[in-house]
Amino acid sequence: MLVRRADKLAGSAVTMDGAKSVAMRMMVGRADGAPNFAMRHFTVEPGGHTPRHSHNYEHEVYIIGGEGRVEHDGDFRAIAGGDVVFVEPNKVHQFVNTGAEPLLFLCLVPVSFDCGKPTPGS
Amino acid sequence: MLVRRADKLAGSAVTMDGAKSVAMRMMVGRADGAPNFAMRHFTVEPGGHTPRHSHNYEHEVYIIGGEGRVEHDGDFRAIAGGDVVFVEPNKVHQFVNTGAEPLLFLCLVPVSFDCGKPTPGS
Repeated sequence: MLVRRADKLAGSAVTMDGAKSVAMRMMVGRADGAPNFAMRHFTVEPGGHTPRHSHNYEHEVYIIGGEGRVEHDGDFRAIAGGDVVFVEPNKVHQFVNTGAEPLLFLCLVPVSFDCGKPTPGS
Repeated sequence: MLVRRADKLAGSAVTMDGAKSVAMRMMVGRADGAPNFAMRHFTVEPGGHTPRHSHNYEHEVYIIGGEGRVEHDGDFRAIAGGDVVFVEPNKVHQFVNTGAEPLLFLCLVPVSFDCGKPTPGS
């Protein structure tokens, strides 16, 4: 049985253009045999942010802790632990840490898009 | 932009055979236009449990809080806040609250299975 905790996994720095002070941990992904979607854990340090971008697949996000701001196509919201955000396909989005503690969240993606291409980071 | 919190949503009692003291809140689902997978929030009260069953689609689970035990095809593990569990397709599984507080978790499912049937509770 696969049981994992983010705090027991080493994080990988996200080097994508536009990312600042972001680390990812794969919780359940293609390498584990995930058939449809992948669960990733992100840590955004104070002052950091994810890339501001869009793509033609969705995110479903659960904020674990910290404080931040999310953009969804020009709409901005404050986010904190317990919030769930649905990032629709093709919407410009970004997660920014606006607090003094790490912003921690789960971000799920489909494992494939465009009729079978592997989703980056899945 | 869709931002939701479980503590602002009314829960629906899970009436499936074998469920005891379980409530579900839909965080992101088919009705929201989720293209591939649905995020549901579950509360299992002390002494309660989810059905012990299997099906041919997976779960990806994030334990938010509380204490419990998960079965995955005869393998048992203690679970607590921060644990991620991958329930593979066709494995017998059950989540049991073994603590004195509610067991809270996210459980994600694909929105369809068997070549397009809507997944129950998606």
